Amino acid sequence: MKTYLENSLFPSETGTSTILERGLSYIILLSVFALVLETEPTLSQPFQGYFDQAETIFLTIFSCEYIARLVLAGVRPEYQGLKGRLKYMVSPFALVDLIAILPGLVAGLLPDLMLIRLVRLIRMMRIAKLIKSNRALMAFFIACRASGSQLAASLIATLLMLFVGAVLLYVAESEAQPEMFGSIPRAMWWSMATLTTVGYGDTYPITVLGKLLASMVAILGISVVALPAGIIAANFSKKLEELKSDDR
Amino acid sequence: MKTYLENSLFPSETGTSTILERGLSYIILLSVFALVLETEPTLSQPFQGYFDQAETIFLTIFSCEYIARLVLAGVRPEYQGLKGRLKYMVSPFALVDLIAILPGLVAGLLPDLMLIRLVRLIRMMRIAKLIKSNRALMAFFIACRASGSQLAASLIATLLMLFVGAVLLYVAESEAQPEMFGSIPRAMWWSMATLTTVGYGDTYPITVLGKLLASMVAILGISVVALPAGIIAANFSKKLEELKSDDR
Amino acid sequence: MKTYLENSLFPSETGTSTILERGLSYIILLSVFALVLETEPTLSQPFQGYFDQAETIFLTIFSCEYIARLVLAGVRPEYQGLKGRLKYMVSPFALVDLIAILPGLVAGLLPDLMLIRLVRLIRMMRIAKLIKSNRALMAFFIACRASGSQLAASLIATLLMLFVGAVLLYVAESEAQPEMFGSIPRAMWWSMATLTTVGYGDTYPITVLGKLLASMVAILGISVVALPAGIIAANFSKKLEELKSDDR
Amino acid sequence: MKTYLENSLFPSETGTSTILERGLSYIILLSVFALVLETEPTLSQPFQGYFDQAETIFLTIFSCEYIARLVLAGVRPEYQGLKGRLKYMVSPFALVDLIAILPGLVAGLLPDLMLIRLVRLIRMMRIAKLIKSNRALMAFFIACRASGSQLAASLIATLLMLFVGAVLLYVAESEAQPEMFGSIPRAMWWSMATLTTVGYGDTYPITVLGKLLASMVAILGISVVALPAGIIAANFSKKLEELKSDDR
Repeated sequence: MKTYLENSLFPSETGTSTILERGLSYIILLSVFALVLETEPTLSQPFQGYFDQAETIFLTIFSCEYIARLVLAGVRPEYQGLKGRLKYMVSPFALVDLIAILPGLVAGLLPDLMLIRLVRLIRMMRIAKLIKSNRALMAFFIACRASGSQLAASLIATLLMLFVGAVLLYVAESEAQPEMFGSIPRAMWWSMATLTTVGYGDTYPITVLGKLLASMVAILGISVVALPAGIIAANFSKKLEELKSDDR
Repeated sequence: MKTYLENSLFPSETGTSTILERGLSYIILLSVFALVLETEPTLSQPFQGYFDQAETIFLTIFSCEYIARLVLAGVRPEYQGLKGRLKYMVSPFALVDLIAILPGLVAGLLPDLMLIRLVRLIRMMRIAKLIKSNRALMAFFIACRASGSQLAASLIATLLMLFVGAVLLYVAESEAQPEMFGSIPRAMWWSMATLTTVGYGDTYPITVLGKLLASMVAILGISVVALPAGIIAANFSKKLEELKSDDR
Repeated sequence: MKTYLENSLFPSETGTSTILERGLSYIILLSVFALVLETEPTLSQPFQGYFDQAETIFLTIFSCEYIARLVLAGVRPEYQGLKGRLKYMVSPFALVDLIAILPGLVAGLLPDLMLIRLVRLIRMMRIAKLIKSNRALMAFFIACRASGSQLAASLIATLLMLFVGAVLLYVAESEAQPEMFGSIPRAMWWSMATLTTVGYGDTYPITVLGKLLASMVAILGISVVALPAGIIAANFSKKLEELKSDDR
Repeated sequence: MKTYLENSLFPSETGTSTILERGLSYIILLSVFALVLETEPTLSQPFQGYFDQAETIFLTIFSCEYIARLVLAGVRPEYQGLKGRLKYMVSPFALVDLIAILPGLVAGLLPDLMLIRLVRLIRMMRIAKLIKSNRALMAFFIACRASGSQLAASLIATLLMLFVGAVLLYVAESEAQPEMFGSIPRAMWWSMATLTTVGYGDTYPITVLGKLLASMVAILGISVVALPAGIIAANFSKKLEELKSDDR
């Protein structure tokens, strides 16, 4: 029993996942799904009782899990003894586990409704509990970190492009559309919507000069803003390949 | 005659396609095209008679094809005998063939108009008959399956990104635009439209905080959502190359 | 003089371009630019006289060029003699040259204004004269042809995806928005705007089911529609590399 | 002290950046950030005094920096002596430094408000001072230059595609929407918004022919317009890799 719990809560890199481990993943997903649905007034108002009951159950499960983890942490050499347990408690994964239950425990004590609402949202951090057990997501984060310098470089180029686009359109359109292009920060919103090619259509140039500059910025700029995608894709593919071959 | 039919309906991988085989492909396309046009009221109302006649012809052809396939299935060792025929009938390709004719045969028996309409749409599954004979589409599906684990990983990352974007914008905009950002499921629609860079323009942030968060989500997130495209493209190209070299 | 003209009008692959050859390129660009500006009523009405004069000059130059080409075609062995000239006249490049001047010569004879307008537009085919002398564009077309089977495959996948998207949204939204989703051809316009991620915003789902299906179609489908871009890019880069190394 | 200043203002490629060098980078960012915020009327009106004070401080710093650079330029062999200093003054980096301070010095002398506003914007060129010290941005510009011929080729293909799209939609939609598609230059705005997939939604075809042509143009054209992104991405990644390995 204890060994099974240990294997489930502190899985070794090479072992297969136990039913308990997978079950906990599904419970996390289910609890976040419930929290998401609860924000929708047309659902939460008629079924508030069910949402509250579900949350109580989830809270109990995650609290038990947290205590079990704390008790069993000694299975790892670095977390043995009381000092080891304290060290475990401040490790990133344990903190995420704590954040996943804490808001549910303290929410009742808060006086302000708005604050309660925000604290309740923090419970959604539970989703972060899944990342550590999901190989693909791990590969994704490793890929992002591995291509860090390239990503930073392309993000700087992106920001520069956004800035240049905003300045040009501010010069061209600020008189014609003071509401949308009346300052560089305002033009930045256009710049973002255009260079990411989202193009909501809430703001676009109407003067001939503005359209000319916007066309130039768009044709040259979308290449720059698309850079991170290409870089992450290349590294992600490589890392996942490596993770796969590590298994063999 | 029988050999020609056998070669046409059960083509070997290496043989060239016969005229009958290609003819059937065009008839499938034509029948689906007719079904598509029939949904347009401005066309179906004045020409309903022609559409009905065309469908009767298509139904006859596909019924004959289905019976011929059933009779000739014995050409393949695994489908010989009565038991073999039953085994053939439940194979995916034979089921698609059945689905392509069944709605036309049973539609008249249904009492409800809405049900008839839906059943009629099922006939469009005929297009699936084409996939098995189209090398390029096969390469595409093989590519998707081959990159399965990568695709699954990037889909999970995409869903996580959509979720994070929706939560952030829900926090920032739910007060200002309760109709569009009043709950996380609602904010999800914005999240989807933005991260795929579709940007319909039916929903976008209007507060300063919302615009700031939206910009961050968009710039960082579109890279994640663009991952599957890059992965499929890389694998598709590879698979098509392999299929080509297999021919030689 | 004759040799210079021959080198300019029938440049060998290896030779450098003469001033006359480059000059003609600029005149082509200028003439198309004039034709483009002439379509703008706010420009063509006050300056119609200038546009007509410019067009007369361009027409004279291109007519002279055409005659000179015809006379000098004999410099190429395959176009020698009267029979060779006829063979030259029906070669694609010579036909483009003819199309570039013919509308200007016959436009005056046409009775109908709309017809004149369309015929005048044909003169824009002059831009095609540039392609044969532009190495980069040639590389682009060669790249498209080289990746023909891959492009065809991805175009078929794209069309299939557009079709599937249109059928799904037609089922979900035809009742709520008959104007935009009332038939599959109508839903196709939404499908195109969404899967290319253009997202004009003139048509988008409003029902919950429609939004769910649209999200699925968008997230899975944009990968498919983005395939041709990736394929052309890969081949274009390769071909341009080859063309460059051919020069050395 | 002098050596420290020299190392900071004229850093060698291999040395590590000094605190002064980094400090100047942050001051540049800060000054541009202040200039950006100053354009926003809701901020500049109540806090004009603070903005003016900040600008005076920034101007003093950059003036000192400019003079220090001029004095210390002799540390580089090519800028020694009076003639060397003049040579330094007309070098691109020194000119950018001058442009960064000049508008602040002369703005007070200008009679016209609009002119003052434009001149003030020139101060934002200060951001260009950062490029030379940012390795990633340098890699980006080197990548763009290295892929010059490919980029030029794909830009020509892009312009051709924009032109073809505009002509086709002009023919199809000029009667139905003279305001938006009444001339080729006007249709060009649609063409740009569609082929970059921005899709503002201010202009889209409404006729059946227009929608058909627009779909064709979009599906085939976005591949062409997406080419530069792919080319820059490939070269950027390569150059950054090279720059990194140069360091070792």
